[in-house]
Amino acid sequence: MKVVVTGGAGFLGQRLIRALCARGRLTDAEGRERPIERIVAADASEGGQGIADSRLRFARGDVADANFVVELLGQDTASVFHLAAVVSGAAERDFDLGMRVNLDGTRALLEACRRQSRPPKLVFASSVAVFGQPLPEVVTDATMPTPQSSYGVQKLIGELLVGDCSRKGFIDGRCVRLPTIVVRPGRPNAAASSFASGIIREPLAGEPAVCPVGPETALWIASPDAAVAALVHAHELGADRWGTLRSLNLPGIRVTVAAMLAALRQAAGEAVAARVRFEPDEAVAAIVRSWPSRFDTARAEALGFPRDADFASILSQYLGDRAQGG
Amino acid sequence: MKVVVTGGAGFLGQRLIRALCARGRLTDAEGRERPIERIVAADASEGGQGIADSRLRFARGDVADANFVVELLGQDTASVFHLAAVVSGAAERDFDLGMRVNLDGTRALLEACRRQSRPPKLVFASSVAVFGQPLPEVVTDATMPTPQSSYGVQKLIGELLVGDCSRKGFIDGRCVRLPTIVVRPGRPNAAASSFASGIIREPLAGEPAVCPVGPETALWIASPDAAVAALVHAHELGADRWGTLRSLNLPGIRVTVAAMLAALRQAAGEAVAARVRFEPDEAVAAIVRSWPSRFDTARAEALGFPRDADFASILSQYLGDRAQGG
Repeated sequence: MKVVVTGGAGFLGQRLIRALCARGRLTDAEGRERPIERIVAADASEGGQGIADSRLRFARGDVADANFVVELLGQDTASVFHLAAVVSGAAERDFDLGMRVNLDGTRALLEACRRQSRPPKLVFASSVAVFGQPLPEVVTDATMPTPQSSYGVQKLIGELLVGDCSRKGFIDGRCVRLPTIVVRPGRPNAAASSFASGIIREPLAGEPAVCPVGPETALWIASPDAAVAALVHAHELGADRWGTLRSLNLPGIRVTVAAMLAALRQAAGEAVAARVRFEPDEAVAAIVRSWPSRFDTARAEALGFPRDADFASILSQYLGDRAQGG
Repeated sequence: MKVVVTGGAGFLGQRLIRALCARGRLTDAEGRERPIERIVAADASEGGQGIADSRLRFARGDVADANFVVELLGQDTASVFHLAAVVSGAAERDFDLGMRVNLDGTRALLEACRRQSRPPKLVFASSVAVFGQPLPEVVTDATMPTPQSSYGVQKLIGELLVGDCSRKGFIDGRCVRLPTIVVRPGRPNAAASSFASGIIREPLAGEPAVCPVGPETALWIASPDAAVAALVHAHELGADRWGTLRSLNLPGIRVTVAAMLAALRQAAGEAVAARVRFEPDEAVAAIVRSWPSRFDTARAEALGFPRDADFASILSQYLGDRAQGG
């Protein structure tokens, strides 16, 4: 079977591709486990060539370019993992760019899916950013999304389109609302949540880090391994397990900035943790504050989605990745 | 001030235009009451020329045609009432048509709004079709929309875009989720709810009517007068009363098909009511069943939105309109 990963040069895309290569098999829309013969990693940026695997091919292009996407999928794509997006901070600064990539891009992909010989499976990486104020104390599976960022609005619209195209039988879609992923390697990005990785990653690399929100700020987070496992699990579950509701809040853990820094101090010492400086940035803080940090993810747990144990184990995962140069 | 009404040749659009002509004034986005100098009624169909008023002009065109919409609004539009839509049954039968008019049309309109010299007010006619199964016993202001029709999905996406464009300051938007409007005059249309007017209108005109759903089927309905009053009230409320949540479930009344026919029998006699024949149509019934019929519209009531007294008064409204040839 042929698998397409959009955003395939990104951090999560690369980890997902490694996981797919290692698995070697996926369950198709008819419920048959089949070998993965081809993976096409699409991305607007370079960077997808880091994995050596004969099944993998890299396609550089714009997911909002309908012609590119039609060519990308051909007519033989069995599964799509749609991770490509303009992140939250960038979509807020440039409304038109966010609309083009996050909305038009998802539509172009769904249109291309309709051209497949059989309706493909599609896993859409949505986000807890679909939630915004006002919020109940605890977000449940029945909480109404009220996004207060353009990114959150665009992700929610993507979910609605994936849901409707699934109902119409154009695709077999599944949307998972990812928590903030911590710890991301590499450089800071334009996501409002970028600091959450930066305040761990930079001090460990001997660099200073700026935290734009207060230490009491709480986040709903998951590790990269948990996020990748969730994307694959979302794909593997039978359509009957999803039913008509094709969107799901993923398990995560609630952690404050203060608790993250305490874990860093414990693991790496006071001198490392002291490299974080608090410098309030109201634009970032306003977006982050609008996101919920307490969830009851009963449905995801009943469906067998994984959860990280605690922040110490997330930190260990990152230290292990670093040790392996990952 | 200049006011644009999309769907202005439609039944509700025509009634709204009459109401605006009669009022003569509206409150602009800066909170000043101003005389209505021009009303432009836009529609893909003919039919907008029935009202004689020197302030009114008719523009025929496609709301999904960006050039038409840019020209329609010019740069001096102070208020837009966006009623144009492909109705539920038609959007379900022709997915692409629904996406084009209901989604691309709304986007084109919002883009044209961004070109105005001042951010205009925009009232978006949404629908209870944004709700679908699973549903709680009573839909409240906190109930998560889970549309199970393409029309409902497209209306909800429109709400999200209107909400985000309001947050960004591009417009001052307000979305009202209209109940099923009963009794519509004229011919049946492609809405799944078309029968709800047909089973009253056709028998009163001496014609047979087919009811595609069972007599126990309940609907959340409002009269044409209540709907028009709600659109105007939504426009007139200050932005501070709307706050960040720009979508609202409107008051209505819950009525079963059996109760509607009982009221018809009481008002017009057994022979008239007997002109209705039950002939189940599962495609229509499935859409109608997915809509809620019990609402708690506390927020709308606190904001002063009107509610019909009962079905007998809705029937009287229609009989009065007929007597006046309306």
